[in-house]
Amino acid sequence: MNISIQGTKGSYSHIAAEHIFGNNIELLERDSFKEVFQDASENNTDFGVIPIENSTHGSVFQNFDLLTQNNLHITKELYLKINFHLIGHPGVVVEDLTDLYTHPVALSQIQSFLSEHKKIDAHEYPDTGGGVEMIKEKSWRHAAGAASKLAAEIYGMDILEENIHDNPKNYTRFFVLSNTEEYDKDANKTSIQFELEHKPGTLSNAIKCFADQDISLMKIESRPIIDTEWEYRFYVDLLAGLFNSKMQTAIKNLQNYARNLRVLGTYKEGEYIET
Amino acid sequence: MNISIQGTKGSYSHIAAEHIFGNNIELLERDSFKEVFQDASENNTDFGVIPIENSTHGSVFQNFDLLTQNNLHITKELYLKINFHLIGHPGVVVEDLTDLYTHPVALSQIQSFLSEHKKIDAHEYPDTGGGVEMIKEKSWRHAAGAASKLAAEIYGMDILEENIHDNPKNYTRFFVLSNTEEYDKDANKTSIQFELEHKPGTLSNAIKCFADQDISLMKIESRPIIDTEWEYRFYVDLLAGLFNSKMQTAIKNLQNYARNLRVLGTYKEGEYIET
Repeated sequence: MNISIQGTKGSYSHIAAEHIFGNNIELLERDSFKEVFQDASENNTDFGVIPIENSTHGSVFQNFDLLTQNNLHITKELYLKINFHLIGHPGVVVEDLTDLYTHPVALSQIQSFLSEHKKIDAHEYPDTGGGVEMIKEKSWRHAAGAASKLAAEIYGMDILEENIHDNPKNYTRFFVLSNTEEYDKDANKTSIQFELEHKPGTLSNAIKCFADQDISLMKIESRPIIDTEWEYRFYVDLLAGLFNSKMQTAIKNLQNYARNLRVLGTYKEGEYIET
Repeated sequence: MNISIQGTKGSYSHIAAEHIFGNNIELLERDSFKEVFQDASENNTDFGVIPIENSTHGSVFQNFDLLTQNNLHITKELYLKINFHLIGHPGVVVEDLTDLYTHPVALSQIQSFLSEHKKIDAHEYPDTGGGVEMIKEKSWRHAAGAASKLAAEIYGMDILEENIHDNPKNYTRFFVLSNTEEYDKDANKTSIQFELEHKPGTLSNAIKCFADQDISLMKIESRPIIDTEWEYRFYVDLLAGLFNSKMQTAIKNLQNYARNLRVLGTYKEGEYIET
């Protein structure tokens, strides 16, 4: 089975993919999320696995936009506990380090470590696992990555210091994307998008459709619609499966208030995985 | 008058500050938004000027978080048309260029230009004006910035190509922040934040308070609350002044549904400024 991710082996997307599909997968390592969506749209891969939201950092906006631009289906979700470890060559100690390479989001989550180690210059790198790979290949003993235990294993590197992240409760939510419409019979969550006119009460009327059916709204995200000046598209996650009769009623009612309503997927609420 | 901004002279924050306060201001050029909030909180400056949202790129999330973490007041807003121009040393032509330095958001908005000029390597720089200044100081004739006309003027550089941005309708919304509560008598917009319990209908009940008073909701933003796993804080912009009697009723009603309700400011709807 082919799974397309942004990043390299040892990244959190890789861990998410292995957790969902097992470790007998062929990983397509891409430079950008755009390529992951493209892989899935053009059937170059069985599934794409993307992060959509982090509990500390917030939404991955680019992926909301890509959900809109592509016609894929969200078929699964997963929450992964994100622990960052300081990873370097065996024998290296923290005092040897002058540089650190990792993803910008990871950098934002190891601020305490960085401010306690002012000698270490932090550099942005496109993904966490890739930073470790680069340091390995260049045999740099002055540099470390901030990445997962899996990254240390894969590249045969050592964990120089465990759990260097600021927030001990830091989760990333992942979506599995498919070009094929498929529904989990246990689906109890649904993600939709819609657009609204700018008038008093439009959003209130829209989300009341779900409140009236006693459906919990888990999250609402607004994104500016490109090429308009200040119109917004809304992304809403609801705690009910698409084929639940209350959800069917709510969506039917919502058609009266919203433009360009689209169901992005229905899936089973994701497990929380400790890594 | 002291005005604190993130960035340097010639940045869009500088243009916004001049538009609001005139050009007889003392600019405090800071490296981070955090320092701008600190300046205002500690009365090191009269006002801070920050971007809060861009019509193409979306919200500046860090500034929503900083609004929550600091106890400042939004006193004005302004919409600035963002035009990026290719700026370099006089006499340089596009064909001479191998490198471009500008802010990551600017990079994301000149993608067509960059893909038509594959010879030019794009580099992230902390701000648009600063990129031009750096190229000027280093006398680099192989490099250009992507910045405002004001940046070209200030640093005595040339516009090598006008309007290299992808989207001709690209606006950034700015807020003026003050440590002093001050209200514009013409205020017709209000920004608030609040938190909700995770139960069916909580958001619907909350925003219905405004719909019931015929008040337009201009924008809703949700941000994860740090140190919880998946609770959200909402930021809502409403089209009515704080002292409008309908707004007072709506806010009073909202207290019954929302936790930690706070008014972030009331101000006159910002003008759209062409630059």
